[in-house]
Amino acid sequence: MDYVFELTIKVRDYECDIQGIVNNANYQHYIEHTRNEFLRSEGVSFAQLHDEGIDTVVARLSMVYKNPLRPNDTFVSRLAVKKDGIKFFFYQDLFRLPDNTHILHADVTIVTLINGRLRDCERLNKLFAKYF
Amino acid sequence: MDYVFELTIKVRDYECDIQGIVNNANYQHYIEHTRNEFLRSEGVSFAQLHDEGIDTVVARLSMVYKNPLRPNDTFVSRLAVKKDGIKFFFYQDLFRLPDNTHILHADVTIVTLINGRLRDCERLNKLFAKYF
Amino acid sequence: MDYVFELTIKVRDYECDIQGIVNNANYQHYIEHTRNEFLRSEGVSFAQLHDEGIDTVVARLSMVYKNPLRPNDTFVSRLAVKKDGIKFFFYQDLFRLPDNTHILHADVTIVTLINGRLRDCERLNKLFAKYF
Amino acid sequence: MDYVFELTIKVRDYECDIQGIVNNANYQHYIEHTRNEFLRSEGVSFAQLHDEGIDTVVARLSMVYKNPLRPNDTFVSRLAVKKDGIKFFFYQDLFRLPDNTHILHADVTIVTLINGRLRDCERLNKLFAKYF
Repeated sequence: MDYVFELTIKVRDYECDIQGIVNNANYQHYIEHTRNEFLRSEGVSFAQLHDEGIDTVVARLSMVYKNPLRPNDTFVSRLAVKKDGIKFFFYQDLFRLPDNTHILHADVTIVTLINGRLRDCERLNKLFAKYF
Repeated sequence: MDYVFELTIKVRDYECDIQGIVNNANYQHYIEHTRNEFLRSEGVSFAQLHDEGIDTVVARLSMVYKNPLRPNDTFVSRLAVKKDGIKFFFYQDLFRLPDNTHILHADVTIVTLINGRLRDCERLNKLFAKYF
Repeated sequence: MDYVFELTIKVRDYECDIQGIVNNANYQHYIEHTRNEFLRSEGVSFAQLHDEGIDTVVARLSMVYKNPLRPNDTFVSRLAVKKDGIKFFFYQDLFRLPDNTHILHADVTIVTLINGRLRDCERLNKLFAKYF
Repeated sequence: MDYVFELTIKVRDYECDIQGIVNNANYQHYIEHTRNEFLRSEGVSFAQLHDEGIDTVVARLSMVYKNPLRPNDTFVSRLAVKKDGIKFFFYQDLFRLPDNTHILHADVTIVTLINGRLRDCERLNKLFAKYF
């Protein structure tokens, strides 16, 4: 699986909870933000798709938490994408910098709703075809 | 798998994003809140455990998103718990009220760090023994 | 100033940060949620208004933090509303239960955009007239 | 009032709500993050202070919302700091790039709790003395 996009992000203190580490739900924010910035790098935005009647929605998500992120940590968020039927699969990993400690692996299945109905999305298919 | 705890929650508008539905990461907040309230119902809190040097951390999480929650929706969050080795497994489901539409299923693997080290947690074992 | 609406809310652990108290920004979530539930109690929702081209937006906000909320705290969120010109003023207070410790006072100025333009909102005027 | 620190931030889609603009509470996250990064630029962190028994807490906050931030917007967050008695005053502004549209002005009063008691904080006084 080859990564096709990456983004460097710094932890914000408010993302950490009582345990002093990034709260679990915030990792989901990080990987969603990475997918959306990947979309933007391809010339299309999540908000723009929504306005056109296309909603990309998470159907399944699995995450393996390997090491926690802490205040002041900087990490790189990497992403690969594949297609199977009408589903898009995103393979996402977070690595802490500078030592590349593996923080999290996520498998995310995305489907597209066109005007509220589950449909194959030609627009995204064309956009991502080069990666399949 | 028998549910041993449940909590009724109402969606807050700020939890919804541009698509007009609850943002994916917030479901993780709902199920975390449910686990923590379950702990409280057993007489112990997440914060109190942290102060005693016991951190419960999510090791793995998988979620299947079946139907989205929308503004004004009320739902019930149900939970079952099992143990295998040093791991606690939580099986969690959200059902929208009043029709019990299945919203989300989550499998969550929790491990305990005692003074920062992965350890079997006698305190939680005793607390939950009646459920195993 | 007479309160015209109140809501009881329980702190969720994930709303607390490294200091072990509710993170400052979350108080804004509490008071926004209270205003939106007040709207709902009057038969109209934030999302529905948005769909009709009416956006209620915060123009000014001031908050006095008197005492922090902690994990497991339950509090009551109270609200009064006045009108001056095209502005709605909300006076909001949070009191911790059961001892009514004063947690926060907020003054919030709301204006309405109708199809993106700052306008007096007849619909909300009628709805709230009984309170002015 | 001269700004002594600035940070460039990009809006993340999940920070936007049903109205398609950044949710009000997230501006508070932006300005808190800016203050904490300012602290870091001076060699001290929010988490580290907490571990030393020093908690910086917001006592008062007022915000004027001038223009909303939208998905894909990038903005600069600027900060000035003054001292009066035991209080620190932060004057904070957000400007959208590249045209410097004024997004928000905030006045934030911070006090310090040392081992839970309101106290003048010598450590921060020394750190910031050059700005007063």
